[in-house]
Amino acid sequence: MGKEAHLPSFCGDATETGALDVLPLSDQEPHLRLSERFERLRAHINQALPHGAVHRIAVAIYEPDADRLKTYGAGGDAPSPLDRYETNLADTPTLRALAEAPGVRIIDDYQDHPSPRRHTASIRESGLRSGMILPLHHEQTFVGFLFLNSRQPGYFQGPIVKQLAPYIDLGRLLAITSIRTTQTLRGAARTAMAFGRARDDETGGHLSRMAEYSRLIALELAQTHPLSDEYIEMVYQFAPVHDVGKIAVPDGILLKPGRLAEEEFAQMREHVSRGVAMVLAMTEELGLSEDRRAAIMRNIVAYHHERLDGSGYPTGARGDQIPLEGRIVAVADVFDALTSERPYKRPWGFTEAADTLHAEAAAGKLCAECVAAFLRRSVEIEAIRGRHGVR
Amino acid sequence: MGKEAHLPSFCGDATETGALDVLPLSDQEPHLRLSERFERLRAHINQALPHGAVHRIAVAIYEPDADRLKTYGAGGDAPSPLDRYETNLADTPTLRALAEAPGVRIIDDYQDHPSPRRHTASIRESGLRSGMILPLHHEQTFVGFLFLNSRQPGYFQGPIVKQLAPYIDLGRLLAITSIRTTQTLRGAARTAMAFGRARDDETGGHLSRMAEYSRLIALELAQTHPLSDEYIEMVYQFAPVHDVGKIAVPDGILLKPGRLAEEEFAQMREHVSRGVAMVLAMTEELGLSEDRRAAIMRNIVAYHHERLDGSGYPTGARGDQIPLEGRIVAVADVFDALTSERPYKRPWGFTEAADTLHAEAAAGKLCAECVAAFLRRSVEIEAIRGRHGVR
Repeated sequence: MGKEAHLPSFCGDATETGALDVLPLSDQEPHLRLSERFERLRAHINQALPHGAVHRIAVAIYEPDADRLKTYGAGGDAPSPLDRYETNLADTPTLRALAEAPGVRIIDDYQDHPSPRRHTASIRESGLRSGMILPLHHEQTFVGFLFLNSRQPGYFQGPIVKQLAPYIDLGRLLAITSIRTTQTLRGAARTAMAFGRARDDETGGHLSRMAEYSRLIALELAQTHPLSDEYIEMVYQFAPVHDVGKIAVPDGILLKPGRLAEEEFAQMREHVSRGVAMVLAMTEELGLSEDRRAAIMRNIVAYHHERLDGSGYPTGARGDQIPLEGRIVAVADVFDALTSERPYKRPWGFTEAADTLHAEAAAGKLCAECVAAFLRRSVEIEAIRGRHGVR
Repeated sequence: MGKEAHLPSFCGDATETGALDVLPLSDQEPHLRLSERFERLRAHINQALPHGAVHRIAVAIYEPDADRLKTYGAGGDAPSPLDRYETNLADTPTLRALAEAPGVRIIDDYQDHPSPRRHTASIRESGLRSGMILPLHHEQTFVGFLFLNSRQPGYFQGPIVKQLAPYIDLGRLLAITSIRTTQTLRGAARTAMAFGRARDDETGGHLSRMAEYSRLIALELAQTHPLSDEYIEMVYQFAPVHDVGKIAVPDGILLKPGRLAEEEFAQMREHVSRGVAMVLAMTEELGLSEDRRAAIMRNIVAYHHERLDGSGYPTGARGDQIPLEGRIVAVADVFDALTSERPYKRPWGFTEAADTLHAEAAAGKLCAECVAAFLRRSVEIEAIRGRHGVR
């Protein structure tokens, strides 16, 4: 019996107090990535289960509009064999079936199933032998898959599966929580933009192109830089929010059919600081002000008009002061502005716009790596312009 | 090996498919209350652990502004011994300490600790003997406590505690997810209201009073009706959102210093349908359109100007067609309008406003039970008016 035994408490007097070895997975550490949470979960499973041999926990998320299934986060005893990978769900009948009629899929040994597909080959070549795949749902909608893998063939059998149950549900909840937080941030910002005022230049087309262009740059940069799938997804989700502050700019200026006078332009520029204030207020309301995703959204809003040589606005930040997500969105934004019709200009063609991006990069304004990465994907750029019609 | 073995899949070919006995706790069932999720978790624990004897899992949430710790949801083998209960955290030193320096608190036997406090007595009298209390955090901020109780003295000792670890983390994640979803809905709506336009009559004072009045009515009704703690909390959180549609009403009408002409009043009335459309769009963006909390928010927005005799707007719904949350907020709204200053009227006193509420109830317009419940708490009403200054 502790010395505090006679202090009154909400639920009785305490006789013992101390630290508990619960899984440190919950939301109290807003800076942890899903991969890190998965890795902690995996370590805990292997410690708690006899002969624990779970060697990888991963999640892939699903984007229904594009029928896109993409890697999102993984914890494992080795670097993930599958990163920045995507496929159409329609192309993978077994998974499609699992998504449609929830259940679980167990693979006893990947060696028994030679498959020419890159993803299966990657898993197999990394030495993983058995697996378990579970669909993830939110509000009865399929949102992705949870994967557990072992280097031990036939690991996911018998009593092990039963013992894994609470850990699997933890993995599902962690994955869903991560996916949902992004949706919360983006959804709240988009709602606010819609509630604010319906604005001509904030069309669905512009927002979709911003998302796709920014994602393309991030994906291409990830070929040579260590960008996680989760980071790429954040850039994709939050790029369309970059101009949220425009709802605070008077219509007379925002919709003026012609070039702005200097003073009007100064007011227009204020959309950045207004946007940052809005995102700060929003993340505060949502209880997400310390979330690392919120920081990415904030950076996108704050830095998309800054230029590497310090000639941008609002702060004139330069070089490394401008976070990568700000650089990426700046390139996407300039390209979309050039290739879109405006009251005062015709829409430019790809080559003309590409020349300008190169020139801006050479002048030390736009990030040269981002520009080069973007323009290497010209085929996809044209496809995006086709899908999300340039006005 | 299954017959689908040669179909390609994302992660290898499947050899076995079926249902898995994972805990059905995740977010795929948006209509489950936290209490029901806790009850499922409890059942699973008792089935999975040898001599499983967890008889109650409960959560209390914390509201820092009021230093209020309040019951929120509980699953158990008997009706919860503590519902609609609240206390100040400052009054319970042991729990306050636990909130400040995270850890765990174990009570071996409540019988050893006679306490005059109602909450401890309730727990003890219900036959619960031992307990475990864990603080819940989100973004390093204390948000509540998780309680586990057993009818068995000394249950939370030794290896049991270790085996409970993943279930405890599930309980924590479930609780935090539930608390967070409410915050998401409210935060997004409030952000949108703030982004939309700063409006004179949407002051913090008005919003806070709406919340407190509505909660008071719900709490008092719960004395005689089966309203859960979770429901009461939703009403409290979402009442301030009732007028969200006003951001779509032109300033000229909304801020007109005088009574409105018939046509202007018609436009003003549209704030309800605009608000419903906004909430629908918002919950869609947030991926919460089927969430039962979203439905409560929607009802508050949709029905707060309806009247039981069908004389309200926008649909002229009557009687049972008006959900309880709509009736509650209607009473809070009328009372706050009467007791607030408006461009065209002085603020009424309590007695005068109470007489009008009684008259409206007698005329079959406002819910008589809600009015009676509200007016029984006159002392608290005055305290709320004092705290959240009537303009």
